[in-house]
Amino acid sequence: MYDLIIIGGGPAGLTSGIYAQRARLKTVLLEREMVGGQIAMSHVIENYPGFPSISGMELMQKFEEHARGLGLEIRTAGVEDIAVEDRVKVVKTVDGDMRAKAVIVATGAKPKRIGVAGEKEFLGKGVSYCATCDGPFFRGRRVVVVGGGDTAIKEAVYLSKLAEKVYVVHRRDSLRAEKILQERALSTPNMEFFWSHIMKEIRGAMGVTGVRLKDLKTNDEKEVAAEGVFVLVGINPTTDFVDAEKDGRGFIKTNDRMETSIPGIYAAGDCRAKPLLQVSTAVGDGAVAAFVAQSYTEDFDRP
Amino acid sequence: MYDLIIIGGGPAGLTSGIYAQRARLKTVLLEREMVGGQIAMSHVIENYPGFPSISGMELMQKFEEHARGLGLEIRTAGVEDIAVEDRVKVVKTVDGDMRAKAVIVATGAKPKRIGVAGEKEFLGKGVSYCATCDGPFFRGRRVVVVGGGDTAIKEAVYLSKLAEKVYVVHRRDSLRAEKILQERALSTPNMEFFWSHIMKEIRGAMGVTGVRLKDLKTNDEKEVAAEGVFVLVGINPTTDFVDAEKDGRGFIKTNDRMETSIPGIYAAGDCRAKPLLQVSTAVGDGAVAAFVAQSYTEDFDRP
Repeated sequence: MYDLIIIGGGPAGLTSGIYAQRARLKTVLLEREMVGGQIAMSHVIENYPGFPSISGMELMQKFEEHARGLGLEIRTAGVEDIAVEDRVKVVKTVDGDMRAKAVIVATGAKPKRIGVAGEKEFLGKGVSYCATCDGPFFRGRRVVVVGGGDTAIKEAVYLSKLAEKVYVVHRRDSLRAEKILQERALSTPNMEFFWSHIMKEIRGAMGVTGVRLKDLKTNDEKEVAAEGVFVLVGINPTTDFVDAEKDGRGFIKTNDRMETSIPGIYAAGDCRAKPLLQVSTAVGDGAVAAFVAQSYTEDFDRP
Repeated sequence: MYDLIIIGGGPAGLTSGIYAQRARLKTVLLEREMVGGQIAMSHVIENYPGFPSISGMELMQKFEEHARGLGLEIRTAGVEDIAVEDRVKVVKTVDGDMRAKAVIVATGAKPKRIGVAGEKEFLGKGVSYCATCDGPFFRGRRVVVVGGGDTAIKEAVYLSKLAEKVYVVHRRDSLRAEKILQERALSTPNMEFFWSHIMKEIRGAMGVTGVRLKDLKTNDEKEVAAEGVFVLVGINPTTDFVDAEKDGRGFIKTNDRMETSIPGIYAAGDCRAKPLLQVSTAVGDGAVAAFVAQSYTEDFDRP
């Protein structure tokens, strides 16, 4: 039996791993896909203090090295369910059950689909949810970015350096992104904004050839020719497998000690209901979750 | 008038500065003494993710460079009071008043005195609150460390590399420090523990010559000869100048958006009531405080 199982290998999970190893907890970190989480797909991070500019991949490699350097065990495993049997947490994975005194859920969140015609059909054939991953395929082509938040605008600016033209489709008439990002976007010559527009359809044949947009103010529809569509409209937390109390959007509710509604199960990072999803805040969450889990495991065997 | 005044230049304040600059807020950071805060006095930090081992000074230089690189204005100024006049925050410094829409209090916390005879008298003559600052003066000498938490034990291990002998005086019969630190301390040959002891007096003439200890289990008293005394028993928040609601120990109460009881005044880092005081958590606080302050300043002039 482990003292602690950490589910998810992004910034929050790796930070919990660093703290748990320093606390000498018998710990394993389970990651379904690739260590680093969503942030590893971001081409540049400029607001994690200490690193003025670094790629998400490189930063997460540093986190992973830091955790492994302290001896953290990291395993590839998808978690299906967590059961609690006489206070022992039974983490059910594809490869069997694992037991621990405490669990930290740090599974993050995944990009939202918008559900328009063509979105599913052309996935991987022009439709993408990650500019860093797929941007280079659209060098010299035209791309459409859907969304107006930090991620959307950051990725749009990145795409403008590769693509011939970037169209930004945003349902509002102003951006929600950080001012510094807004300024960069608005001063980018090959970027064009469709304010108060939504995307109705993605069209194509072998691959994407264009999109149909609707102007929310006039109800007019228009077609725009493009070879790529980047859907960057937000995220859904990966929390289906946890029975702890959640908010209306599926984010796990905790107090400021990262305690969920289930004793001995903690949540940290983007999967948790909180005001700001950032590497900086994931790191804070991860530290607190491991610290509180440590006390819990120490008290576990006492009457 | 500024959009935002940040009070305090430790990890929380500098992180708020990074986020505020990226949000294009007109911001100034006020620091009474030296940028970096208490952590700059720590000889090594091993649990800020991304930096497996770095001195507090060096890490804070990186934070400062990061913030200055984004154009953050940093001024030396001691803050005496914050008044609120028609929602405008008036920050009163020794050199005059400064005005802002929002204020982030990130003033941290300072070492606690224990209040024994000789503590004040021999300050700077053998009594210290910072091993990193004063440790090197005790090369080849005997020192007493009072305390059993993370900081105390980390600093005791550091001192054992310089001093001939380190005596650790702890009021409990076990340590509260991280396990990894406990193991290091307990396996250090020139370190000796006085469990369940308190220090009653610091004695000396021109400088410290020894301490008088009391065994809490037997009530026996004994003298131990030493040239240095490091008092590492905890911290007090620097929050006297703020009228916001505080807990019994003087730490400022906030919600998870770092909002204090006064609209437009936020608290971040060690001066805030929270479960874990670390660079990792200060960074999370600083990011959230700036993010929430940004919305507040944007709404400030609306009816």
